[in-house]
Amino acid sequence: MSTSTLGIVKRSITRADRAAVTTLSEFGVATVHEAMGRVGLMRPGMRPVYPGARLCGTAVTVLLHPGDNWMLHVAAEQIQPGDVVVAAVTSECSDGFFGELLASSFRARGAVGLVIDGGVRDVRDLTEMRFPVFSTAISAKGTVKATLGSVNVPVVCAGAVVNPGDVVVADDDGVVVVPAAGAESVAKAAAAREANEAGKRDHLAAGELGLDMYSMREALVRAGLKYVD
Amino acid sequence: MSTSTLGIVKRSITRADRAAVTTLSEFGVATVHEAMGRVGLMRPGMRPVYPGARLCGTAVTVLLHPGDNWMLHVAAEQIQPGDVVVAAVTSECSDGFFGELLASSFRARGAVGLVIDGGVRDVRDLTEMRFPVFSTAISAKGTVKATLGSVNVPVVCAGAVVNPGDVVVADDDGVVVVPAAGAESVAKAAAAREANEAGKRDHLAAGELGLDMYSMREALVRAGLKYVD
Amino acid sequence: MSTSTLGIVKRSITRADRAAVTTLSEFGVATVHEAMGRVGLMRPGMRPVYPGARLCGTAVTVLLHPGDNWMLHVAAEQIQPGDVVVAAVTSECSDGFFGELLASSFRARGAVGLVIDGGVRDVRDLTEMRFPVFSTAISAKGTVKATLGSVNVPVVCAGAVVNPGDVVVADDDGVVVVPAAGAESVAKAAAAREANEAGKRDHLAAGELGLDMYSMREALVRAGLKYVD
Amino acid sequence: MSTSTLGIVKRSITRADRAAVTTLSEFGVATVHEAMGRVGLMRPGMRPVYPGARLCGTAVTVLLHPGDNWMLHVAAEQIQPGDVVVAAVTSECSDGFFGELLASSFRARGAVGLVIDGGVRDVRDLTEMRFPVFSTAISAKGTVKATLGSVNVPVVCAGAVVNPGDVVVADDDGVVVVPAAGAESVAKAAAAREANEAGKRDHLAAGELGLDMYSMREALVRAGLKYVD
Amino acid sequence: MSTSTLGIVKRSITRADRAAVTTLSEFGVATVHEAMGRVGLMRPGMRPVYPGARLCGTAVTVLLHPGDNWMLHVAAEQIQPGDVVVAAVTSECSDGFFGELLASSFRARGAVGLVIDGGVRDVRDLTEMRFPVFSTAISAKGTVKATLGSVNVPVVCAGAVVNPGDVVVADDDGVVVVPAAGAESVAKAAAAREANEAGKRDHLAAGELGLDMYSMREALVRAGLKYVD
Amino acid sequence: MSTSTLGIVKRSITRADRAAVTTLSEFGVATVHEAMGRVGLMRPGMRPVYPGARLCGTAVTVLLHPGDNWMLHVAAEQIQPGDVVVAAVTSECSDGFFGELLASSFRARGAVGLVIDGGVRDVRDLTEMRFPVFSTAISAKGTVKATLGSVNVPVVCAGAVVNPGDVVVADDDGVVVVPAAGAESVAKAAAAREANEAGKRDHLAAGELGLDMYSMREALVRAGLKYVD
Repeated sequence: MSTSTLGIVKRSITRADRAAVTTLSEFGVATVHEAMGRVGLMRPGMRPVYPGARLCGTAVTVLLHPGDNWMLHVAAEQIQPGDVVVAAVTSECSDGFFGELLASSFRARGAVGLVIDGGVRDVRDLTEMRFPVFSTAISAKGTVKATLGSVNVPVVCAGAVVNPGDVVVADDDGVVVVPAAGAESVAKAAAAREANEAGKRDHLAAGELGLDMYSMREALVRAGLKYVD
Repeated sequence: MSTSTLGIVKRSITRADRAAVTTLSEFGVATVHEAMGRVGLMRPGMRPVYPGARLCGTAVTVLLHPGDNWMLHVAAEQIQPGDVVVAAVTSECSDGFFGELLASSFRARGAVGLVIDGGVRDVRDLTEMRFPVFSTAISAKGTVKATLGSVNVPVVCAGAVVNPGDVVVADDDGVVVVPAAGAESVAKAAAAREANEAGKRDHLAAGELGLDMYSMREALVRAGLKYVD
Repeated sequence: MSTSTLGIVKRSITRADRAAVTTLSEFGVATVHEAMGRVGLMRPGMRPVYPGARLCGTAVTVLLHPGDNWMLHVAAEQIQPGDVVVAAVTSECSDGFFGELLASSFRARGAVGLVIDGGVRDVRDLTEMRFPVFSTAISAKGTVKATLGSVNVPVVCAGAVVNPGDVVVADDDGVVVVPAAGAESVAKAAAAREANEAGKRDHLAAGELGLDMYSMREALVRAGLKYVD
Repeated sequence: MSTSTLGIVKRSITRADRAAVTTLSEFGVATVHEAMGRVGLMRPGMRPVYPGARLCGTAVTVLLHPGDNWMLHVAAEQIQPGDVVVAAVTSECSDGFFGELLASSFRARGAVGLVIDGGVRDVRDLTEMRFPVFSTAISAKGTVKATLGSVNVPVVCAGAVVNPGDVVVADDDGVVVVPAAGAESVAKAAAAREANEAGKRDHLAAGELGLDMYSMREALVRAGLKYVD
Repeated sequence: MSTSTLGIVKRSITRADRAAVTTLSEFGVATVHEAMGRVGLMRPGMRPVYPGARLCGTAVTVLLHPGDNWMLHVAAEQIQPGDVVVAAVTSECSDGFFGELLASSFRARGAVGLVIDGGVRDVRDLTEMRFPVFSTAISAKGTVKATLGSVNVPVVCAGAVVNPGDVVVADDDGVVVVPAAGAESVAKAAAAREANEAGKRDHLAAGELGLDMYSMREALVRAGLKYVD
Repeated sequence: MSTSTLGIVKRSITRADRAAVTTLSEFGVATVHEAMGRVGLMRPGMRPVYPGARLCGTAVTVLLHPGDNWMLHVAAEQIQPGDVVVAAVTSECSDGFFGELLASSFRARGAVGLVIDGGVRDVRDLTEMRFPVFSTAISAKGTVKATLGSVNVPVVCAGAVVNPGDVVVADDDGVVVVPAAGAESVAKAAAAREANEAGKRDHLAAGELGLDMYSMREALVRAGLKYVD
């Protein structure tokens, strides 16, 4: 009935096609977002904990209460190899919900990273472990384990809808969500786009102008652009 | 396949039950949000353009491009009496997408208000018209009409999923979204909650402590609370 | 050589034509901004200290150091009837640079208001005096008088260039700056725009759609808009 | 040992002298802050829930966990007539920790208002009750009752240290804290300042310049100010 | 008449003296800003896309519409070797206006970098290319090409006025603008300042106090500083 | 009488036990914060100027006026080997109060770093010097030396109370303050916590779930958690 229900753990979820996930992992977020038709992007405040972090996997979703990371422990049990934990919080909170102990646990379960609309800590350890984390804050402040949220319900994370099983792709440019059912077609569209861009890059690097390559001059004149000296 | 598709106008949408909307209009946002099980609330940055503004209606959704209000004109045609236009923008933008001309148009079509994750202008006129608007910004800056978005697709507006036809309730406390299918049960739950609170209010106003009324003392001791002098 | 020079008070400035200022005072900020060709608007964080505040006058500009309002006293002497003091700060600062004592002084000199990219205090008094102030912050924290800035040099205030003598128009929608030399033509353009909008308002209020009134349907189809049921 | 200890309720606190509180209640926050030697002010984000709200009372302090208002109920029992509840949160949180039910309870116990570095809800009711609340956010989102904080320990609220029993003065300009031991001397200093300002106001309103009244001209020249035409 | 006019491309601009640009490129932004008399600095939110990025060149200015990078393609044609593209947006927008394709194009035309009061994408590629970019946001979200702005008109970028041909210097400390006409004198002043600081550094590193080196003790006493034990 | 008094330099302060400081330097901020009972943490906006910066030392406190770094020179004289300068500002200010010259001076006096609730500059130099600085902003904008603050008075820095002599520990996760008198007991608690976590890490890395290791399952059921398929 509503976006998410509290106090629920869904155990059986339908993950996106594994081959499509592998294909998507070869592309950057900007390319995937374009291939999606420019939807599914999280807000730009979602940043990697260390430069160069990147991940691609299927979502195990979590809904947390501010200042409380109880459900991340519940989520750990639902992780399967290749999953990304995607955590939303019911209101903005910079607390450090996640650190190196949970990273060790998540990795042991096969997780390839974490995306959280909140804070994390142990930045130095996460960097050394090369465990990719994308968060909206960094804070040493720990959390309690007192209030139920949910696992594997649909969530809105940093402005994007994430359903369990969706593909999540993240790199220095941000985080994008590909619905499970569309993973294969988006992967194909991304590959096509990438191929198309390669040719353009060579032209532009050789000094050809986008004005000419994209045939923009006429449209600019029609729109009223005036050149003066 | 994705949260929303660009360039689409859906004409036939299923609006929430009219009687349920009427019932919901009698409650404040805080009450409805509690009755929902604490989901569906937009982020707190969504504020009324004038103090005391409030609205309750069925959503006609719009997805806008930053700096471009073309789709609000397209949306106007889809409005039916009792609707609220709910506008999301593909990225944060404070521009004044909406002002008194569009308010005149929306009202003429039967709209009971606007909720927009962006800016509006003509605050003085909107206030005089008593046309309730909830926005995240106020700006005199106008917008262009050049790029397609969509109308009546699911959107994420200020962190909440809104499907066309959902009930949107807004007052000084914020904006909450009730899925169309759940409107009646939420309306009942809200009424029950309100009745329950009335009794509590009298007790508290008479000086009874929440500690006693809610029987919290034992739990506090169990949690380790210590009283010192 | 640079945008502004520190330690300078320019006494003779060329104010915009008085009649043009009077004409401009009849229009809202949104209208003037449109008439300007959509330039000259300050950032939306600039808000009136009390709802309904509005002003229109010629700028006496001030450049302040953070936490220091010395130059506002220097500016007071340069005020002529009909002037608006426009204060920029060399870096963002929420301190209360201005309160009711300075408001009494400015009013006595003929000032019609203040626009400041910083904080003010004595909100209650300013409201009772109906002295219109637009600021980016409210703070009880007073300032020192120790460091020179300048008066009547060009400043960038909340993102807009203001030259001494320019017309500044402010209302609930924000603050716009009209260069002195263009005041008359902008006033005319604003009047034309207002006249043009009056007709549109009637049509829209009668239920005519902007889609038809502005003949948008064809362009929407050309852009690829699709209607579905 | 530390700023505050969790899980503690201190029952016996030393409140500031009642007469000094009464005297302080006659002055605005800006005046009291100046009389304090410009210390003790909370950050400017602390705003009244309705325009014109003001309060002056002795602090009952509360330390809350984000998303959890349990301790506000514990605090209610410690309120004595003339107290102001001052609530800090261990990390930034916009949730609605307080609404009209708690306001009814607090008022019944004699509280004259609430200052909270977090969110509140039921704005309409609080406004009708004229129960003065100063907060950093407004949100319909309710809170849980699961995690201990403390009552009547020293807290840092919006950047200011508050000890239980201190005087808290709040109006449209912000919130200032006067240590209990200094209440009488600050009250005297505030009265002296107010008397001194009255004379200045008359001079300024009559057109005398601050430059002359405060004898600033020589210092400005010494600092290097140059007048040009 | 106004700060900038829309729909204009100015082809002939007067660039700052090449030798002065070369000299300025040897200094950090802090030194140049001091040499300017502390004016011309952009707001601190302007950050390098990769640590250690720095640039110095002559400005080709661009005014963009939010969510629209059309004019960056128009600007590419106006680039001459040694230029920096400086892009302002008519309202705040975090979209990714610029990525590696445009970087390839700009570099091919001789540009030494980009400064934009908006977002960029392809951070990994830009870092590998060592193409220095300073922006206020990073976002994978692409932009449309639909609305005219201008090229080589005066703009306000992140609070600083930039005229085409001005020198723009950027490093980890921020971005400063040197008017073309003043480039040589600022370069000289920067060199003088740098020479002066070298001596100070040695003294300070040897343990001499700034209090003594700058002869501050007397002024501190005069201001009323008190030492206590 | 108040949190801090202006115009005072306290020369004799009681620094935390040196051995305890050495022990604390071996732990991360998150561990120390937990060992403190989760108090004493500065707000998360306090970030290292270069990745990997860390420090641990005894506080020399400074209270600055916005845009004015005079007191940092006064503080330099009070530094003893092993000290950290902790600077608060009376209101939020991003100016560059500190750069490489002061870093040279502070280091020469034995300081091990700086923590400032404001801006700094010369990021490149500070990084090369490996002088650890934690700040809330980076800005090339210099400051004046005109207004008194204080040295070695209690301050509130980024939301945490700091008394002169307290231990300050900072790393990529943030900044925490340990009161001087509690340094030894916190050091012991941190060591105990670290030992305890080592065992947990091995279990988690081996795939054991936190649900089992922390025996959470029963409490989750009691709280009402439901597993569904």
